[in-house]
Amino acid sequence: LLGTIDAKQALLTLERAAFTSDPAQVNNMLSSLTNLTNLGANDIYRWYMSNTTPTQPTPNLTTASSNPIDANPLSYPPDIKLNLIYPCTPKHISKYSTQRFRFVTESPTIYITHIRPWILSQRTSGRLDWIFNILSGLTEQEDVILRSDWGTESGFLLLPDLNWDRKTITSLHLLALVERRDIWSLRDLKKKHIPWLRHLHEKVRNAATKVFPGQVEEDELKCYVHYHPTYYHFHVHVVHVMMEPEGGTQNVGKAWELGGLVEWLESMEGDEQKGFESVSVGYGVGEESELWKELWGEMKVGQEVTLGKSR
Amino acid sequence: LLGTIDAKQALLTLERAAFTSDPAQVNNMLSSLTNLTNLGANDIYRWYMSNTTPTQPTPNLTTASSNPIDANPLSYPPDIKLNLIYPCTPKHISKYSTQRFRFVTESPTIYITHIRPWILSQRTSGRLDWIFNILSGLTEQEDVILRSDWGTESGFLLLPDLNWDRKTITSLHLLALVERRDIWSLRDLKKKHIPWLRHLHEKVRNAATKVFPGQVEEDELKCYVHYHPTYYHFHVHVVHVMMEPEGGTQNVGKAWELGGLVEWLESMEGDEQKGFESVSVGYGVGEESELWKELWGEMKVGQEVTLGKSR
Repeated sequence: LLGTIDAKQALLTLERAAFTSDPAQVNNMLSSLTNLTNLGANDIYRWYMSNTTPTQPTPNLTTASSNPIDANPLSYPPDIKLNLIYPCTPKHISKYSTQRFRFVTESPTIYITHIRPWILSQRTSGRLDWIFNILSGLTEQEDVILRSDWGTESGFLLLPDLNWDRKTITSLHLLALVERRDIWSLRDLKKKHIPWLRHLHEKVRNAATKVFPGQVEEDELKCYVHYHPTYYHFHVHVVHVMMEPEGGTQNVGKAWELGGLVEWLESMEGDEQKGFESVSVGYGVGEESELWKELWGEMKVGQEVTLGKSR
Repeated sequence: LLGTIDAKQALLTLERAAFTSDPAQVNNMLSSLTNLTNLGANDIYRWYMSNTTPTQPTPNLTTASSNPIDANPLSYPPDIKLNLIYPCTPKHISKYSTQRFRFVTESPTIYITHIRPWILSQRTSGRLDWIFNILSGLTEQEDVILRSDWGTESGFLLLPDLNWDRKTITSLHLLALVERRDIWSLRDLKKKHIPWLRHLHEKVRNAATKVFPGQVEEDELKCYVHYHPTYYHFHVHVVHVMMEPEGGTQNVGKAWELGGLVEWLESMEGDEQKGFESVSVGYGVGEESELWKELWGEMKVGQEVTLGKSR
């Protein structure tokens, strides 16, 4: 939803919250079902739609006009998660706009000619300063869960992902931001980085198990990177293997599993400098994105690519 | 939820329903938010939990004790979908039982020693006969959308996936079953298959656009394969790039994008026979699965692997 607060634009996104597994609350929810409508039946299978409504205390005259839930907030767990971006920029608006998606294949030539210079211009224009501020300890230090191997080539820090509720273990979602600044995306990974990546992969999983000591094992964690990422400083998503991702963030064409990338590099022909700069990478891209508007969309109709040239 | 109805077992599953995009109903929902709790804030980002509760008419003494929603069911769309299986079997119960998932890494040695012989035993025990019956035209011919290059090495047929409603274009989900029977999974793909895979990839996308002529373009389609697949006869999932998958079917650790596999083979060091048999593959596996019970779970505690040996 796009609206305004004090005349400035704001984006509000709503998500259905996870169900509770607390038996008392499950009972409350079941007894609150109303408007039950049968949609169909087939042999032993039947399906329905319904509304849930918070358990209401017995109404009486003194509370009838106030909101009955407030009297007993714990009787019914939240069913909605809201995310507010305020004030938001046109870039946020286009990111969240309903848009047509395309699946494109970025060749090494397209990467070197158009994408890499565009990423460089983002890095030099100050758009990654907020990342560098976290890394250097200037901001958001209260969110940093731990720093590992800090001050060495293997340094990384662990942050909770914005979309994680910070308490549900089966939806654990952390970000590992590496300390080194020479790797912008998976495109920069080369055979020479294999030992570094293997070490990082192991350390990140090990560190993540310490966020909930004794509650999550290393073989319950999955690590992946995005291409294209939201920001071009190498970071690894660490999630619980049972986490149900939203918005396709773990889908093929968006996410690459870290162990698989290492295996790919390992099996690659070439010297130490050989890496993902030299392969084609397929991914989904929204028609409202800068990449579509100033590159893929233009290429599709035979126009000149303007990516990074309008600024 | 597992319970009983008339002394027979029944399974009830609940899902959050999709949001409506009807502006009036969105307004109703927003004005119904209660128990708004701020979870955190970071710069321009803020997130909250809340309850929705159906819009209530102004309370008065005559309606205060009845359920206010029933008076105006259309004012608030359903927020829950329920699925009932009744009576259910033990097999249903184990399928829907909560199981722990693990992320495992299948080395070339584990594949050759345990997995490959197990796949072979499945193929020779008749468990793939239903696939061969479709391929040879004995069954399910009414579902076959088209056969391409049939009778050649490039032959494949196109079927709708069981989970597709067969009408919503943005959730298009087809399966391409190849005619050749020597490729059981991505493990069998080698450098020598690159021309065949490129041809298949192109033909499959082209064929899929013909299912809805003029409504879906080739760059709106994404192709991937599963590992482990449900059955060990090579098949490619073809989906609309906007399709929102359920149950992680497009996730890293389950799905591999076809174009990416071809790029990997292309960049791989070695002769024509080199391929995915020689790399480690990471994937998620449920603890109720045969693979966990008779291989990964046993290996984890140092027991002898029994996969395929109990039959």
